[in-house]
Amino acid sequence: MRASRFFISTLKEAPSDAEIVSHKLMMRAGMIKRISSGIYTYMPMGLRVIRKVEGIVREEMNRSGAVELLMPVVQPAELWQETGRWQKYGAELMRVKDRHGRDFVIQPTSEEVITDIARTELRSYRKLPVNFYHIQTKFRDERRPRFGLMRGREFTMKDAYSFDRDLDGLKQSYQIMYDAYTRIFQRFGLQFRAVAADNGAIGGTGSHEFHVIAATGEDAIVYCPNSDYAANMEAAESLPLYPTRGAATQALTKTATPGKAKCEAVAELLQLPLTQTIKSIVLTVEKEATDKVPASKVVWLLMLRGDHELNEIKANKIPGLAGYRFATEQEIVEYFGTPPGYLGPVNTKKPVTVVADVTVANMHDFVSGANEVDFHYTGVNWGRDLPEPLVFDIRNVVEGDPSPDGKGALAILRGIEVGHVFQLGTAYSEAMKATFLDENGKPQLLQMGCYGIGITRILGAAIEQNFDDKGIVWPTSIAPFEVVLCPMGYDRSEAVKAETDKLYDTLLAAGVDVILDDRGERPGAMFADWELIGVPHRVVIGDRGLKDGQLEYQGRRDTEATTVPLADVAAFIKARLVSQ
Amino acid sequence: MRASRFFISTLKEAPSDAEIVSHKLMMRAGMIKRISSGIYTYMPMGLRVIRKVEGIVREEMNRSGAVELLMPVVQPAELWQETGRWQKYGAELMRVKDRHGRDFVIQPTSEEVITDIARTELRSYRKLPVNFYHIQTKFRDERRPRFGLMRGREFTMKDAYSFDRDLDGLKQSYQIMYDAYTRIFQRFGLQFRAVAADNGAIGGTGSHEFHVIAATGEDAIVYCPNSDYAANMEAAESLPLYPTRGAATQALTKTATPGKAKCEAVAELLQLPLTQTIKSIVLTVEKEATDKVPASKVVWLLMLRGDHELNEIKANKIPGLAGYRFATEQEIVEYFGTPPGYLGPVNTKKPVTVVADVTVANMHDFVSGANEVDFHYTGVNWGRDLPEPLVFDIRNVVEGDPSPDGKGALAILRGIEVGHVFQLGTAYSEAMKATFLDENGKPQLLQMGCYGIGITRILGAAIEQNFDDKGIVWPTSIAPFEVVLCPMGYDRSEAVKAETDKLYDTLLAAGVDVILDDRGERPGAMFADWELIGVPHRVVIGDRGLKDGQLEYQGRRDTEATTVPLADVAAFIKARLVSQ
Repeated sequence: MRASRFFISTLKEAPSDAEIVSHKLMMRAGMIKRISSGIYTYMPMGLRVIRKVEGIVREEMNRSGAVELLMPVVQPAELWQETGRWQKYGAELMRVKDRHGRDFVIQPTSEEVITDIARTELRSYRKLPVNFYHIQTKFRDERRPRFGLMRGREFTMKDAYSFDRDLDGLKQSYQIMYDAYTRIFQRFGLQFRAVAADNGAIGGTGSHEFHVIAATGEDAIVYCPNSDYAANMEAAESLPLYPTRGAATQALTKTATPGKAKCEAVAELLQLPLTQTIKSIVLTVEKEATDKVPASKVVWLLMLRGDHELNEIKANKIPGLAGYRFATEQEIVEYFGTPPGYLGPVNTKKPVTVVADVTVANMHDFVSGANEVDFHYTGVNWGRDLPEPLVFDIRNVVEGDPSPDGKGALAILRGIEVGHVFQLGTAYSEAMKATFLDENGKPQLLQMGCYGIGITRILGAAIEQNFDDKGIVWPTSIAPFEVVLCPMGYDRSEAVKAETDKLYDTLLAAGVDVILDDRGERPGAMFADWELIGVPHRVVIGDRGLKDGQLEYQGRRDTEATTVPLADVAAFIKARLVSQ
Repeated sequence: MRASRFFISTLKEAPSDAEIVSHKLMMRAGMIKRISSGIYTYMPMGLRVIRKVEGIVREEMNRSGAVELLMPVVQPAELWQETGRWQKYGAELMRVKDRHGRDFVIQPTSEEVITDIARTELRSYRKLPVNFYHIQTKFRDERRPRFGLMRGREFTMKDAYSFDRDLDGLKQSYQIMYDAYTRIFQRFGLQFRAVAADNGAIGGTGSHEFHVIAATGEDAIVYCPNSDYAANMEAAESLPLYPTRGAATQALTKTATPGKAKCEAVAELLQLPLTQTIKSIVLTVEKEATDKVPASKVVWLLMLRGDHELNEIKANKIPGLAGYRFATEQEIVEYFGTPPGYLGPVNTKKPVTVVADVTVANMHDFVSGANEVDFHYTGVNWGRDLPEPLVFDIRNVVEGDPSPDGKGALAILRGIEVGHVFQLGTAYSEAMKATFLDENGKPQLLQMGCYGIGITRILGAAIEQNFDDKGIVWPTSIAPFEVVLCPMGYDRSEAVKAETDKLYDTLLAAGVDVILDDRGERPGAMFADWELIGVPHRVVIGDRGLKDGQLEYQGRRDTEATTVPLADVAAFIKARLVSQ
């Protein structure tokens, strides 16, 4: 590509609404252009990156045996009503009426359409397994779109949906996708981690997220440096920090802690470690009356060590707690006889269901609220002072916690979620009656998996991981161009023009994605543009070097340029491209 | 590709809502799947064709110097309000509100967004000319979607928009696109014609349509077999059929023609040729009052030869007639003193503006209505019986009319419009204040052109032109696969499997897009599938042939198979592919 036949538009300053580095740099490098909140035009420079990302995804999906199709952007509400998501999806689902008043959605995801296709096309076990994928525009009407392509409203995703005859088949299809995703992210040249994620009903190893590692990532990734254990914060298991429960050594004592409602303040006042205090969280589960069961309300008390935080996803998986909400102040007064601040499991006013975190269950002589303003109990002991609790893992792990696989201490990284593989099971096939006939002619529900990659989000994530003060530093495989040729005086020096054109033709013929900057910019502006845009390899062709038969090469991460003999430069660049 | 790793789904019968052959065959060949009225999933087999069409379009657009970007599907109403199309576009424009109640459209076309980009990005003459294009999903809420991909609601188009500093530049950009389109349609392997089209305000040669020739086409294409003259019916110029006007030889005579309101009936009754009769069409132009001008109503009488038809587009271009409507019966009675049926230019009750078609203007001794039920005038002559009229070309040409370039008689073909190139001029840049600064720092309006290709429509048009009773006959360049290998007993015969695999690998290595049918279908079903799907080249590998060292080749249009020596088959196929 010659720059004069391309469109390059760089900015010195990012617009003020760009908050994070990837958004700022994409705007400055002319990769995207804002049309409306969370809606962007992908400008020529940005589109090239998107196409490279799509290309790698497509190749690896095809290699895995998945088959590409293309489902529509505008989808009829009827299908979404069948699964109940028309009602449940909430305001992020963009709804639209056609000229006849019929309801449609602008697709945020395509489980309904693919299941509709499956129930008519996959009628026999002979058609299974199959994995359909598409790369399509999506729309999610985010309340607060921001961060450029990281949290836009219109964006591009690759979605794949596998169909199998049974759970074993699903697990195989899932593993194939897991492996394909691993190859895809390796080929992107990004540091990433696949982490176990929560997948609600199915459980087990039925869900993994793929995160690009970046200090600015929104998500916490938990991993063990000594093993391959990795999970997101929602799914990372916390083990009891005490192997067994110690015996009681203190009497239960009501202690004045005036004005000290927080664990930290109580520990400081009583000169005890924070790890001896207990945090109380009150939750309510309300059920509406049905034909058979009257309405009910159960209040739960969840107990965490003073330095730990509740994991709301884990809490929601405790039998009976699904769909909980935090208790109101009125409910707390009703059940504990006191407003929030000094709550505890001992001497509640009305019975509550007590859940202790696995670590709390092994504590002894601990401190908790006394259900009376300005008072705590010290020396609280299970069995003696209060009944044995229900015990569950209900907290977020922290750095240094033991790894669930017993192979060391956990570490925590920040990540950006860019991929997700998920065993759906029969959730959609049941709702939409998607069955196939087995060998005996008996209808069976299709076992489904779904697998997403945020194509446009990859751009943001790649930049968050790879930038410096000059601009973007693209990995070669997804850079808009692999190599830029910067001639010094292309229009002034015949020698420079001749050697530049020759090198350009040589690289093109070798299949290198090269851009020749023939815009006639000054060297400083030219270099600044290409450093901002982030092309990973640069060759400078100038009269001075040519006199000695030399060109100047600099990798985007190199601190200095390298002199390369003219005759070797093509081979030199090809070697560099391969090594990346 | 191995068929076992692809998705093939054929039907014996097309669904009953498929009216035209391309729709029926695409459904039967499993290329598309209906999700809602006018909304389809492109199934794997159909998507392959779409990708090939897109690939050719993209290559030729890039070759022409156009630069690809991608504008969003969901676009803010504000931009559409600037050009007034938010109000004017009508019910085909799918409007949608976001969660905050802000208005958006699902794009049917992107002039507004590209002009918005241009006014911020093309601020200097140095950035011009430039031609941006994208290949994107569109939505038009058709009142009656039908014909599969030919008139769907969601579809894919390539749209390009050129920006130039002046009209000369626009004409150059336009010619470059015209040439690119010609290459594109040639590479599709389709019979097509570029025809001059009407382009309203700009006029001249500012618009061409590209039509795929097909007997089932919706549009009439007018051309001269002896020259390169071609136009669509709206734009095709009709010359006077009489070089000069003959002198009057008959007296004006009021003649009883009881019950004969139509020209054909009058001619038969009076034993005159139909070409001596005149057809009268009454139009009304109403203008609302403004500050300066009171409301007005003008009634026009348009006169055509009895065997000719009005061209409404041409009528709309007559000065003063723009925005006309057909007159009401009440208006006709008011101006002609009689209800419709026996109208004519002589003895109207109130004055009307008379327009004669160029042919009518040279007629003499003609027959027209007498403005009295059951009576006509014969022997009507201009000047003597009524004033000289305004003269315009207002009719559709018919087969055999003289070509406007004087090179013979016109012929008419049926076509399907699949491309359109159009000189927009400053219509959008004016409305949206899209200017650039010229060398003198003076702001100038951008001159725009727009250029569309209906990507998904191409599939329908290609099939309408290329099918037989067995199914689709794809041109090789856009076929889902170029070659299909049909082994007879792939799983039973080791020799068949070995030779098939070898040939498959050889063809793949040679870059041939080949599918190996390893599904284990019976030969009859296998052949029927591939004939229906329309793969242009088929090789059959069987034990019987292999004994003699031979395979069987059959082109999709061939009536018989050809025997080819095993050793030559790869070269034979490659030669066939090149020759297509």
